[in-house]
Amino acid sequence: MKVNVKDVRELSIEQPCSIIDIVKMVNPEGLNNYCAAKVNGTLVDLRTTITNDCDIELLDTSNKESLPILRHTAAHIMAEAVQNLFPEAKITIGPATDNGFFYDFDFRPFSREDLDAIEKEMKSIIKKATRLERREVTRNEALEIMTQRNEPYKVELLEAIPEGETITIYQQNNFVDLCRGPHLLNTRPIKGFKLLSSSSTYWRGDKKNKSLSRIHGTAFFTKEDLDGYLQYLEDVKNHDHNKIGRELEYFTTVDVIGQGLPLIMPKGVKVVQTMQRWIEDEETRRGYMRTKTPLMAKSDLYKISGHWDHYRDKMFVIGDPDDEKEVLALRPMTCPFQYFVYKNSQKSYRDLPCRYGETSTLFRKEDSGEMHGLTRVRQFTISEGHLIVRPDQMVEEFKGCIDLAKYCLTTLGLKDDVTWHLSKWDPEDTEKYIGDAETWEQTQQHIRDILNELNIPFVEDVGEAAFYGPKVDINAKNVYGKEDTMITIQWDALIAEAFDMYYIDKDGSRQRPYIIHRTSMGCYERTLAWMIEKYEGAFPTWLMPEQVRVLPISEKFLDYAEEVTAELQRNGIEVTCDRRSEKIGYKLRETRMQKIPYALIIGQKEQDEHVVSMWNRKDGDLGSTTLDKFVEDVCKEIRTRSVDLTIRK
Amino acid sequence: MKVNVKDVRELSIEQPCSIIDIVKMVNPEGLNNYCAAKVNGTLVDLRTTITNDCDIELLDTSNKESLPILRHTAAHIMAEAVQNLFPEAKITIGPATDNGFFYDFDFRPFSREDLDAIEKEMKSIIKKATRLERREVTRNEALEIMTQRNEPYKVELLEAIPEGETITIYQQNNFVDLCRGPHLLNTRPIKGFKLLSSSSTYWRGDKKNKSLSRIHGTAFFTKEDLDGYLQYLEDVKNHDHNKIGRELEYFTTVDVIGQGLPLIMPKGVKVVQTMQRWIEDEETRRGYMRTKTPLMAKSDLYKISGHWDHYRDKMFVIGDPDDEKEVLALRPMTCPFQYFVYKNSQKSYRDLPCRYGETSTLFRKEDSGEMHGLTRVRQFTISEGHLIVRPDQMVEEFKGCIDLAKYCLTTLGLKDDVTWHLSKWDPEDTEKYIGDAETWEQTQQHIRDILNELNIPFVEDVGEAAFYGPKVDINAKNVYGKEDTMITIQWDALIAEAFDMYYIDKDGSRQRPYIIHRTSMGCYERTLAWMIEKYEGAFPTWLMPEQVRVLPISEKFLDYAEEVTAELQRNGIEVTCDRRSEKIGYKLRETRMQKIPYALIIGQKEQDEHVVSMWNRKDGDLGSTTLDKFVEDVCKEIRTRSVDLTIRK
Repeated sequence: MKVNVKDVRELSIEQPCSIIDIVKMVNPEGLNNYCAAKVNGTLVDLRTTITNDCDIELLDTSNKESLPILRHTAAHIMAEAVQNLFPEAKITIGPATDNGFFYDFDFRPFSREDLDAIEKEMKSIIKKATRLERREVTRNEALEIMTQRNEPYKVELLEAIPEGETITIYQQNNFVDLCRGPHLLNTRPIKGFKLLSSSSTYWRGDKKNKSLSRIHGTAFFTKEDLDGYLQYLEDVKNHDHNKIGRELEYFTTVDVIGQGLPLIMPKGVKVVQTMQRWIEDEETRRGYMRTKTPLMAKSDLYKISGHWDHYRDKMFVIGDPDDEKEVLALRPMTCPFQYFVYKNSQKSYRDLPCRYGETSTLFRKEDSGEMHGLTRVRQFTISEGHLIVRPDQMVEEFKGCIDLAKYCLTTLGLKDDVTWHLSKWDPEDTEKYIGDAETWEQTQQHIRDILNELNIPFVEDVGEAAFYGPKVDINAKNVYGKEDTMITIQWDALIAEAFDMYYIDKDGSRQRPYIIHRTSMGCYERTLAWMIEKYEGAFPTWLMPEQVRVLPISEKFLDYAEEVTAELQRNGIEVTCDRRSEKIGYKLRETRMQKIPYALIIGQKEQDEHVVSMWNRKDGDLGSTTLDKFVEDVCKEIRTRSVDLTIRK
Repeated sequence: MKVNVKDVRELSIEQPCSIIDIVKMVNPEGLNNYCAAKVNGTLVDLRTTITNDCDIELLDTSNKESLPILRHTAAHIMAEAVQNLFPEAKITIGPATDNGFFYDFDFRPFSREDLDAIEKEMKSIIKKATRLERREVTRNEALEIMTQRNEPYKVELLEAIPEGETITIYQQNNFVDLCRGPHLLNTRPIKGFKLLSSSSTYWRGDKKNKSLSRIHGTAFFTKEDLDGYLQYLEDVKNHDHNKIGRELEYFTTVDVIGQGLPLIMPKGVKVVQTMQRWIEDEETRRGYMRTKTPLMAKSDLYKISGHWDHYRDKMFVIGDPDDEKEVLALRPMTCPFQYFVYKNSQKSYRDLPCRYGETSTLFRKEDSGEMHGLTRVRQFTISEGHLIVRPDQMVEEFKGCIDLAKYCLTTLGLKDDVTWHLSKWDPEDTEKYIGDAETWEQTQQHIRDILNELNIPFVEDVGEAAFYGPKVDINAKNVYGKEDTMITIQWDALIAEAFDMYYIDKDGSRQRPYIIHRTSMGCYERTLAWMIEKYEGAFPTWLMPEQVRVLPISEKFLDYAEEVTAELQRNGIEVTCDRRSEKIGYKLRETRMQKIPYALIIGQKEQDEHVVSMWNRKDGDLGSTTLDKFVEDVCKEIRTRSVDLTIRK
């Protein structure tokens, strides 16, 4: 048979042979550099036997598809080490991930001391260049092995596989795992690895199942790569809003209050208040009416909206549904509350569009493992809105929402940090959606046309639509690269029916309106988190809780410093005066640490000449100027909500 | 014996006689004009027998103490009528009240049709000039009567009375009631009565007991008095915010959302938003830092604060306390949340006072019968605040809170509508309070001194303090005369201990701070309700959701009208333009109905001369002026938050 080895040569081989043999033919010394191969484009283990003509690509350690294989092998080694140390730990599953690997065990939570011991055990296994063996067995043989080894989770997995199927098994030392592979031939290439943390999870990810303990690790082909990654992790952690947001006292959490329930501290509230007034006024300017609707409702309301049947496990329910005549629940959305504002009086076609905005607090019953800083919380506040429009107004109003979203992103300086998505239905899974295929395709085309017309680059995501219609999602990534939706604009031609919403048309008939569900600026907590990570706390001046700090050089100049401070206050600038008798260098260092945009240094010269010496966080000393000129410039910077993306230290 | 009849003469009487006999002596024709008497100052029934020398005052129908007697008799007549129609209804209690009477029955809820039938039956009893008989019996005789009549609630009441006591019984026709009296001699003086409504209540007011049905009625000596009162009730209802607040679309409620959970409509939100920004900025000006803390917490927090043990039945609890590892509850107060903001970093004596303000949403599990419009609700938002201060700063900071309260009342135009109260502890009931008598008396004297120094008239209410300290309550009455607290300022020297709050003093020692719990403007919902009732929707201009309406006389002047509208908008004035092609009189009538402060009428003359014709809700037409002058005047009125209490139409 003819085997064409990519980038090497064509081999003529007389009988079936393994890829290992082929590697030995083309690179007799280098077997340990190879991790797997692709046969006619399909990834396979090096231990695979070749029986027919084929194209083969050998994947060495430099190939980007090799790293997951190394990490998967590292996961097996870790599982062996865990069972060597804790024979009662039962194995479940353990894949490679984007940044490393994990393995879940039915075992008590692992401590850092456990992880250290496991690392040590792994090192000793790896050092011996332990070989991994691959075997193909029948399902029944595999069942017998796993039953004998007393691994109930593996037995459960096998029982779900059709009888007669061939199963691959990998073994090193006394450790045996079911696994599709591929795996390294031996542990030698694992030059750098680290167990990073442990957490708890559930068997098959289902809360109703048994709680498992997961160990997260990472592994690389070189020590240098590992060190580089660990340094990167350290750097990222220093940019995580969950660390610097607390250090800069933007927010905190308290054990007896609870997880996912952050307390926004005075500095954070100043930013949120500024954003809130800005967005509320902007929406008013764009013809929105504001509502303020209750944070809870009877289950009756959620039964109409469908949340009672489909979303109840994510809702905080008050009272026992089986026991009490009135069951209430905290709201996970604002929609029906604003619908009832619309329904309060009969509307005519002339009253539409009705644009309703609300600074709306919502609740979501997150699992304890999911909560993080300000981005995954159990209570949050969003710039919520619903537009009740005539069908003929839909495209224009949808464009208006996109324009508002763009305006928000630009003003916050986030426009280059987001990606736009057209979230579509899944035509293969029509049960998840209401409405027919034609309407879905039509509506999606409308949105596609709008985005193209506005020159917005976007990707299309199948199966990401709401059940009532397609939507535009604007997503941003946090420091770890995790993507979340910041702004959403949803097209809804169907829900008005369920709430019996209508308007009286020109001809006197009752017509169903369309609805746009949208956020303008998104969620205050999340946006604050993104801003903290992006700007490392050095927000644009208009959003800073403290915009100017006045620094008298000594007590002698306190009177003039107070005069300057009062003048800035009169002009609506957030200013404080550092009256302490500390050295000016010390005061200025604090000002810089706290990312204050401007400092005004007040000494003899400034007092005599009735001027101020300016410092800013971007350029440092800026020389002296009159107070009037400084006030004028800063007021303009604030009023125009100027964003300078080059400030980041 | 000598009986001195007030305002008549002294009588000499030879043997014991009833007061009825005395009335017959002094006014032989007028027996029916008399309702009761006072013997040596004590109110007694006319049927009472006189045995000794005494002073007697005869109370005729003009005496203000007579009306409750008539009403109490009416309550007995109503109870008889109810049992005539519904023999299975059991009687409980039925007193006179400030405005009429009620009687509670163990019976199903009464419909309006029931009330009409009962009224008819009462009329027929009253028409017959039915006599009421009074008898004194032993407790055991009374027990026998009520057991025989199958009145279990009366039996229960009697069983609580010591054996051997004398009991008074009143009877008319076949109806018998236990009653101290006094009562009318017969039903003749009941010339006007009306059953007003029915509601549900609990036996002895305790939710754990059986639910009862209450009928409310009123009665008078003349038909004219009744009609006058019914007219007054009608008028009051028209001033009730629960009626006009809905009519003017300030708020609404929705059955499927729930009672006590109002939806604030766009006009209401505008008022609330204006109040919120005003008070937040004012507090910032006064050195407050703002917080934004979560609306729920784990039960752990409420266990520390004491709410879990003492207030849980008024709290919305999420999760089953016996079942789940984490039980959460919606917050009924903000205190501990702000304490934890304080505790986030260590404070020195130089950091105090820490003044924290929050626009804080709270929850209270009200009974369904207690909820009313915007004043008794299950979710509300208050201008909350806590000042953490050194003991030596307490008096000055307390004064600051009073000054802020006075400023709020003055700015809202409510300062003459409130009464000030010093709410003190009850030295007879020390168990309800923490701390010793000396501290209580001292603290109360501090507050008394402060109020006197500030020339604020106040009353002292015993037993109205919080458990941790005395407070100043500023109360206002609604249209029905019901008083509620608008603003409260509380002195708390004790709670810092429970939350382990401290500051580092000059000498390096840890010291406990004092705390002031206070509201500035009070509760947004309640204040909005008071404002609606006081101003009948015609708020001061600065608080009006719409301040100016531009009224073009015809389409010809639309361009100039738009120009005027845009100029007002540019100046931050809430303005709309009525573009409809309706008659000017119709447009102006709507403007007046909606209590808009100003209208600008735009016609030929105005366009030609580039002026505006002004109308306002107080004086009507005001002639023409330049647009600049109008803008300047209105902006000044808004900026200074001017209040004109003479506007009320």
